Amino acid sequence: MKSTIQDVAKKAGVSTTTVSRVMNNNYPVKKETRIKVESAIKKLNFRPNILARGLIHKKSNTIGVIVPSITNLFFPTVVKAIEAILREQGYFIYLCNTDNKEDEEIGYINSLQDRQVDGIIVIDPQTKNMKSGLYEKISKEIPLVFINGYNKDVNCNFVINDEESGAIEAMRYLIKSGHKKIAFIRGQKSYSYDLKEIVYKNVLNDSVYKKIINIGEGNKDSTVDHTMEIIQRFLLTENRPSAFFCCNDLMALGVINACKKIGLDVPEDMSIIGFDNIITSRLVEPKLTTVDQNMYDLGVNAAKMLLKNIENENVDIQRKILTPQLIIRQSTKKIS
Amino acid sequence: MKSTIQDVAKKAGVSTTTVSRVMNNNYPVKKETRIKVESAIKKLNFRPNILARGLIHKKSNTIGVIVPSITNLFFPTVVKAIEAILREQGYFIYLCNTDNKEDEEIGYINSLQDRQVDGIIVIDPQTKNMKSGLYEKISKEIPLVFINGYNKDVNCNFVINDEESGAIEAMRYLIKSGHKKIAFIRGQKSYSYDLKEIVYKNVLNDSVYKKIINIGEGNKDSTVDHTMEIIQRFLLTENRPSAFFCCNDLMALGVINACKKIGLDVPEDMSIIGFDNIITSRLVEPKLTTVDQNMYDLGVNAAKMLLKNIENENVDIQRKILTPQLIIRQSTKKIS
Repeated sequence: MKSTIQDVAKKAGVSTTTVSRVMNNNYPVKKETRIKVESAIKKLNFRPNILARGLIHKKSNTIGVIVPSITNLFFPTVVKAIEAILREQGYFIYLCNTDNKEDEEIGYINSLQDRQVDGIIVIDPQTKNMKSGLYEKISKEIPLVFINGYNKDVNCNFVINDEESGAIEAMRYLIKSGHKKIAFIRGQKSYSYDLKEIVYKNVLNDSVYKKIINIGEGNKDSTVDHTMEIIQRFLLTENRPSAFFCCNDLMALGVINACKKIGLDVPEDMSIIGFDNIITSRLVEPKLTTVDQNMYDLGVNAAKMLLKNIENENVDIQRKILTPQLIIRQSTKKIS
Repeated sequence: MKSTIQDVAKKAGVSTTTVSRVMNNNYPVKKETRIKVESAIKKLNFRPNILARGLIHKKSNTIGVIVPSITNLFFPTVVKAIEAILREQGYFIYLCNTDNKEDEEIGYINSLQDRQVDGIIVIDPQTKNMKSGLYEKISKEIPLVFINGYNKDVNCNFVINDEESGAIEAMRYLIKSGHKKIAFIRGQKSYSYDLKEIVYKNVLNDSVYKKIINIGEGNKDSTVDHTMEIIQRFLLTENRPSAFFCCNDLMALGVINACKKIGLDVPEDMSIIGFDNIITSRLVEPKLTTVDQNMYDLGVNAAKMLLKNIENENVDIQRKILTPQLIIRQSTKKIS
């Protein structure tokens, strides 16, 4: 049976008000009384009711974290960082997995408000929800921070990677390495793929060789195999590229596997750059050259921005932009 | 500004008690009154205070989920399953990441109880905490379910994989495929590695060739590279095996990479079996033959077991054992 505040008061020979004063440390209590109360709390293994405290202080010390898919290799690292920073400040996180569904995202936002969370972080919010103006309204009611996702003209708190500058760095590296025939691999509809395609076209500018391959669904386990099949056929055509720039690491792994299948050596015969730096990119052979998405830093910055919003209601809308870093490993090579 | 129950009562022209009765549906209310109240709730976008409800009903509708490391490729799938099942029943989960620290695990258990969670699931609990008898005591206070981990003579609720039968199946498959020289790869101290080593020795029984390689730290990203280095040297010795049975997929990936480095083809020259079926095992080329850990089913079963314990205080201690399945892919081959 759990101990109550009454049990503690009885054991210490004081009133429940005194016990409460000792616990909340909000009113002077004689030292010897304090010791008696603390000893009774310890002996009875008494724990305060955090729910009740939350009601009184209008704080639940809980943050909602909404992710499109916890099994995506990108998100666990972000969530880990958020949890680590918030834990230090006494917050717990509700983990909410939307399975990439727009309705589920809204459902969670509502439920989290019902549960009186002190703030919400949404990783990669659904573009449709973002464009609807809903989030601008909600962020007036509760501290809200977004990580990545559609953010053009959206007046909310964001922590974002400058994917554009990451893509420019990757493309320039290939060109500097002597590659003149670079193919680009993307998936269907996504703000991030569109953005990288623009960079690809701009950097190549008046280059004769341009090849854009859309492999469809771009962010599932099956993307690797699907990319492999498409690229295997493509590599058997005559005008094959010497390098690939891929919108993410899953696509890049598919290209590596396609090369293996038809006997092309990476990087001797083909250079490949991915994007994201997921764990798998450094577990394969050759290790993948890729653009690091700052996964841990995204989480750290979002958690800190949210805490600032919780502590001070009048803080301005913030936008923190991180610069991705090209990680040169073994899947790319200089050619002459 | 958020609406209160008073605002709803005023708008509907009824008492707050009537609003409460409509919302809790615990007392008959005239149909036309109900319609008026529901319409006011909708117009004012009123949301009940779940914290307050939790206090009244002595339920927080929240479950704590403790994991050693959310970035380990094994755990996100388990957490996803737990969240999906509990969500259907109106529960939210607190995600707690211990970073493999025994003290943090205990710290979370205490904090979760302070937060009045309705139950706790611990994935891969720390062996030291398990042996201390602490958990048997706690499971008398609060519904508690463990997934995997040390469980010998521990009187708690468990959902576990029968790793022994999985290891037997893997070893027998190699022998049936004609392999007489099978090497075994394990990491340092872990109940699971010890168990598989016993199977390896028992199945080989009076076989002449036995080779056990301990690669040290067995469950980090760096395990892949570290295994590769050790096995690369080992493969250059004279009495090389024709097959490897590895305690997990990270080690198996290390062996695949070692073979590539020295020009051995997998599976033509070397057969390799892993354990766990992490995502990466099906993203590499050749795809890894491995033993599936039932990650999603572990989560589903644990969530259901916990719900049963929450609904009925007098349910007996339960132990659910799942049988792992050998997944035959492309890293193994019959030899003559």
